[in-house]
Amino acid sequence: GRTGWEEYSLITDLQTLFKIEHTDVPLSYYTGILGMPGLTAYGGFYEVCSPKKGEYVFISAASGAVGQLVGQFAKLLGCYVVGSAGSKEKVDLLKNKFKFDEAFNYKEESDLDAALKRYFPEGIDIYFENVGGKMLDAVLLNMRTYGCIAVCGMISQYNLEKPEGVYNLVHMIYKRVHMKAFVVFDYYHLYPKFLDLVLPHIAEGKIVYLEDIAEGLEGGPAALVGLFSGLNVGKQVVLVAKE
Amino acid sequence: GRTGWEEYSLITDLQTLFKIEHTDVPLSYYTGILGMPGLTAYGGFYEVCSPKKGEYVFISAASGAVGQLVGQFAKLLGCYVVGSAGSKEKVDLLKNKFKFDEAFNYKEESDLDAALKRYFPEGIDIYFENVGGKMLDAVLLNMRTYGCIAVCGMISQYNLEKPEGVYNLVHMIYKRVHMKAFVVFDYYHLYPKFLDLVLPHIAEGKIVYLEDIAEGLEGGPAALVGLFSGLNVGKQVVLVAKE
Repeated sequence: GRTGWEEYSLITDLQTLFKIEHTDVPLSYYTGILGMPGLTAYGGFYEVCSPKKGEYVFISAASGAVGQLVGQFAKLLGCYVVGSAGSKEKVDLLKNKFKFDEAFNYKEESDLDAALKRYFPEGIDIYFENVGGKMLDAVLLNMRTYGCIAVCGMISQYNLEKPEGVYNLVHMIYKRVHMKAFVVFDYYHLYPKFLDLVLPHIAEGKIVYLEDIAEGLEGGPAALVGLFSGLNVGKQVVLVAKE
Repeated sequence: GRTGWEEYSLITDLQTLFKIEHTDVPLSYYTGILGMPGLTAYGGFYEVCSPKKGEYVFISAASGAVGQLVGQFAKLLGCYVVGSAGSKEKVDLLKNKFKFDEAFNYKEESDLDAALKRYFPEGIDIYFENVGGKMLDAVLLNMRTYGCIAVCGMISQYNLEKPEGVYNLVHMIYKRVHMKAFVVFDYYHLYPKFLDLVLPHIAEGKIVYLEDIAEGLEGGPAALVGLFSGLNVGKQVVLVAKE
């Protein structure tokens, strides 16, 4: 359940908790791949994008808790998958651990449009949007006809005093693009279906998962702040006590 | 059919023409309300927006060929409808001829966000987008949860050397907004269904239509250029010869 940042919690409303039925995975997975981020990836990819085998899929912030899972879902479906991230370490993870077809470090690309054209010479069918701003603007120049942009987050924009402008929305018309923002609450009813899909894949090693664990509650604030400059590698977890 | 800007046309491919079956309306209507703009309004409103009775609908460039029809469809469905346009004459038309609930002149509003909050204190369910730029940015601040933006055109942006930035896309997430661009070609199969709906309404005077007729082919270029500064009032037609 969701509680405060605290070592002990007094829960008065039991509705805010749910019982963990499958305990053959680390319990921390329920804060990530088997929790809100996992269901976000599932709802955003399958319900918003209606993906099909062979489609060209691009994911930003791809090594994060949501992105890594979206990419693996897309690979399992037979899509071509490219992710962007902010360090060489993350790019290596995307290619080697999560088995993306390609990945690039956006910080090393002076021209994001050119980078996308390099990895998607035929354009992008599905963009799983986690960052917003300049990346979205470049993606809009590279969408395919009837392409879909699933807007999950825009983390590059949340803490700016004034958000960046997006200049290329008119390309939505040229390519009849569909952009849909969603939040995970809309997909809670799919949680059992999601578990049925993802638990066997975890057991068989077909879906892997990476956590970045900060030990001790005192490490929490720095871990939170680190999210916004991309310091975490994988799902950021704060470990209060061992299982 | 679509031909050149010419007094006589040699048509070699008959597929590019369609036969007009209903001649109890002015033939010019087939360039507008019964042609591409009419079907654009129909497809964009009914197919993209899935509108429901009582919803709050905003239309930009509302006195144009498409906008005036979208507004009348929305009124017939029982929606609350507000349009924006660029002159007092057009605003009067929207309120008095097309029976919109409200209309305003965007050129007289220094703060579009404030104007929208005035007309939509509870927010906008459906925005029929014809203009782009600053208007879209203000609309994004006023969408309701699960609102829909049907992107039909962005006429304010086409002739700019650099398009205007749109800064408020992150509000799509807060309100789970769905923005879908479309073109009329996707809805050609609905043309018979569209005629069945709209012809009786025209006959009964429940849907009205306004044309801005430039006489003579020599008036065509000026009429075309006038579109981009909003000189036309209603559907711009160039009359080459009387019926």
